[in-house]
Amino acid sequence: MLRATIDADVFREAVDAVAALVSECRLHIDGGGMRTRAVDTANVAMVSLELAPDAFEVFEASERALGIDVTKLKNIVGTVNRGEKLMLSVPEGGQRLNLAFQSYQYSLTLLDPNTIRKDPNAPALELPGRVVLEGARLTNAIKAASVVSDKIALGIDPEARAFFMEAEGDTDNIRFALGSDEVESLSDVRARSLFSLDYLKDMAKAMSRASTVEIGIGIDHPVRFTFEIANGKGRVVYLLAPRIEAD
Amino acid sequence: MLRATIDADVFREAVDAVAALVSECRLHIDGGGMRTRAVDTANVAMVSLELAPDAFEVFEASERALGIDVTKLKNIVGTVNRGEKLMLSVPEGGQRLNLAFQSYQYSLTLLDPNTIRKDPNAPALELPGRVVLEGARLTNAIKAASVVSDKIALGIDPEARAFFMEAEGDTDNIRFALGSDEVESLSDVRARSLFSLDYLKDMAKAMSRASTVEIGIGIDHPVRFTFEIANGKGRVVYLLAPRIEAD
Amino acid sequence: MLRATIDADVFREAVDAVAALVSECRLHIDGGGMRTRAVDTANVAMVSLELAPDAFEVFEASERALGIDVTKLKNIVGTVNRGEKLMLSVPEGGQRLNLAFQSYQYSLTLLDPNTIRKDPNAPALELPGRVVLEGARLTNAIKAASVVSDKIALGIDPEARAFFMEAEGDTDNIRFALGSDEVESLSDVRARSLFSLDYLKDMAKAMSRASTVEIGIGIDHPVRFTFEIANGKGRVVYLLAPRIEAD
Repeated sequence: MLRATIDADVFREAVDAVAALVSECRLHIDGGGMRTRAVDTANVAMVSLELAPDAFEVFEASERALGIDVTKLKNIVGTVNRGEKLMLSVPEGGQRLNLAFQSYQYSLTLLDPNTIRKDPNAPALELPGRVVLEGARLTNAIKAASVVSDKIALGIDPEARAFFMEAEGDTDNIRFALGSDEVESLSDVRARSLFSLDYLKDMAKAMSRASTVEIGIGIDHPVRFTFEIANGKGRVVYLLAPRIEAD
Repeated sequence: MLRATIDADVFREAVDAVAALVSECRLHIDGGGMRTRAVDTANVAMVSLELAPDAFEVFEASERALGIDVTKLKNIVGTVNRGEKLMLSVPEGGQRLNLAFQSYQYSLTLLDPNTIRKDPNAPALELPGRVVLEGARLTNAIKAASVVSDKIALGIDPEARAFFMEAEGDTDNIRFALGSDEVESLSDVRARSLFSLDYLKDMAKAMSRASTVEIGIGIDHPVRFTFEIANGKGRVVYLLAPRIEAD
Repeated sequence: MLRATIDADVFREAVDAVAALVSECRLHIDGGGMRTRAVDTANVAMVSLELAPDAFEVFEASERALGIDVTKLKNIVGTVNRGEKLMLSVPEGGQRLNLAFQSYQYSLTLLDPNTIRKDPNAPALELPGRVVLEGARLTNAIKAASVVSDKIALGIDPEARAFFMEAEGDTDNIRFALGSDEVESLSDVRARSLFSLDYLKDMAKAMSRASTVEIGIGIDHPVRFTFEIANGKGRVVYLLAPRIEAD
C-alpha cells in the first residue's frame, strides 16, 4: 500500500536520476520512505536512490517492492507542470501505480518484480580520494571533455593539491584542474582512474542541478558520486566502473 | 480580384489552423471575406475556416476560388516578423497570390482549383453533448494522453456532472475529468466517443491559443471543435470522425 | 611562437566566420596579428580573415603558419562561456595550439601546413556596384529566399535607385528591394548576378551580427561581402562565384 503526495519537481528530479541509467527498477517502499538500487544492462554503472518520508507532504506505505517502468514514469511525470502536487497511490495488493495531479488520473501497470533483475549488492569500496565540488562545474567539465574524447581520467594530484580531469583524443587533449581553493573539500591522496564519457554524460544531467557533489576516487577503481535531491530529503549515489587504459 | 491588408500574426494563426490538416485548399473570397473547407486525405477530419472582412484592415475582393498550396503559404507567412502588416493581392484573373511585407514581395503561383478535391459538404450532425473550456486545458490533456496511447475517448458523465477524457494503452491508462465548476459550460447529456490522437495532436496546436473551445460530442459520433481566431473576427471548426472501439 | 589573450566571444566570432566555409586552414601569425585565407572544397567560395594585434589583450607572435582543424577549434571555443578570457599559445617550434580558459587546458594538435591547400590568391575583381546595409537585413532576405528557391540574384537597379534580391522557384518567386533611403550607401551602377543559396546561408550566419555589411557586385561577376568583427579590430571578406543562369 502506498499513499503519498509530493512536489512534482522533486519527484521528477528523483525519477530522472534513475532514468539516466536504467529503464526498469524495483522501488522499495515502507515506513522509511522509498529506495531503489539498480545497475545498467552492461553492469558498468549503478544508481541508488533514497527518498525519506519527509521529502513527501504525505507519506504512508506498507512494505512492498514495486516493479516500475522507469521510462514510462519519466514521460508521465514530465507532463506535470512545475509547482503542481503529485499524488501517488497503490492500493493494498494493487497492480497499478496511480498518479493524480490537477484533474488528471494516470494509472501505470506495475511490472512483476520477479522479471526485474535482482537488486545489486552495494560493493564494498575503499575510495580514499574525496572531492566535493559544485555540480555545475563537474557537468561542464564532462561536456568539454566529450569534445575531444570518449573517455576521461578523474584524479587528485596531492603535490599540486588539485582535483583534475584529463581527456585525450587521437590528437588533442584537454585538462581541467581545480586547486584546493576552488573546491569545497579535497583530500590529499593520490588518485587516478579512467572512465567512459558515455555514462558520465548521462549522470551529469542529473548532477548539474546539485549544489555540491561528493566524488570518491581511487587508483584504477570505480568512482562514486553522491548528491542530495529533494532539498536534502533524498540522496542519489552513482557508481561507475573504471575503463581499462589501453593504447 | 483580391486586395487585403492584415496583421501577420492573425493571418499566420488562420493558415496554421488549416495547415494542421491539409496541404492544399480552395480559398473562397468575396465581399463577405475568406472561407475554406477541406478534408484530410484519409477523409477522417475536416477543417472549416472563416475570416470576416473586419479581420482585415483593408479588404476588397470579387468572388473567386483560389487554389492554395497551404504548406508553401505557411512557410512564407512563417518568415514574417511579429507585428508586421501583410498585404495580400491577386489581380483580376491573375494566377498568382502576391504577398508583400516590409521590403519583401512574394509571389505564390495559384493551383488550378479543378485539381483540388471538391469542397466537402458540412455533414448534418446531431451532437447533443456540449462543453466549453479553455483551449490550453484541452491541449494539455491531449498531450498527456498521447504518452500512454494513440486513441482517446471524450465524453460527458451526467451523474458526475463532468467532462472526461480517457486514454487506455496496452498496460496503462489516464483519465482526466473536469467538473461543471471547472469548465465554462457543460450540458447534462451522456456522451462518449473514441478518437485518434494523431489527428487531435495536430488540431491541438491550433487550439492551444484559443481562450475557449466549444466541443460538440455524442455517443460514437464525430466530435466538433469550434473556436475563434483573429480576435473574434474569424472562426475555425474542426470535425473528426470517431474510431471504432475494438479489443 | 604565439602567446595571446582574447575575449572568448570575439575569438568565437572569428572562428565561426571561417568555419562557415572550410574545415581546415593555415593561420598566419606574426607581429601584425592573425590572418587566414581559404577556399571551400568546391572552389566556389573564399573567406579571408584578419585580426589585428589590438583585437587581443595580449598578443606576441613570431612569424609562422599554423595548420588548424577549424571544426575542432570551433567545438572547443563553443564550450567557453560568454565573457571569459581565452589564452592561446604555441611554444616556439611546438606542434600544439594550447587553449586555456577558467580551469581548462585544451591542447589541439596542429596539422602539417603542407597537407592543407595552398593559400588562394585574392582574385583581382572589378566590382563597380557597392551597397552597404545592416547585416540582419541581408540575413533575413537570404533566409526568406531559401523558402522558394536554391538560388538568388543580387543586383542594383539604378533607375529605381534600389538594391534588390530575387529568388525564383519552380512556381513561386520572391523579390526584396531596398531603396537608397533604406540602405547606408548605394552606388548608381547597374548590377545583377546569380548565386547559390547554399553558400549564402552559411555566410549569412556570420554576417547576421554585423552592424553593416559592404556588398560589391557586378554583372555576372562574383559577389564580395566585407564586414568587421571584434569591434572593428578584425575584418572578414567572403567571395562567392556566380552561378550560371540556365532554364
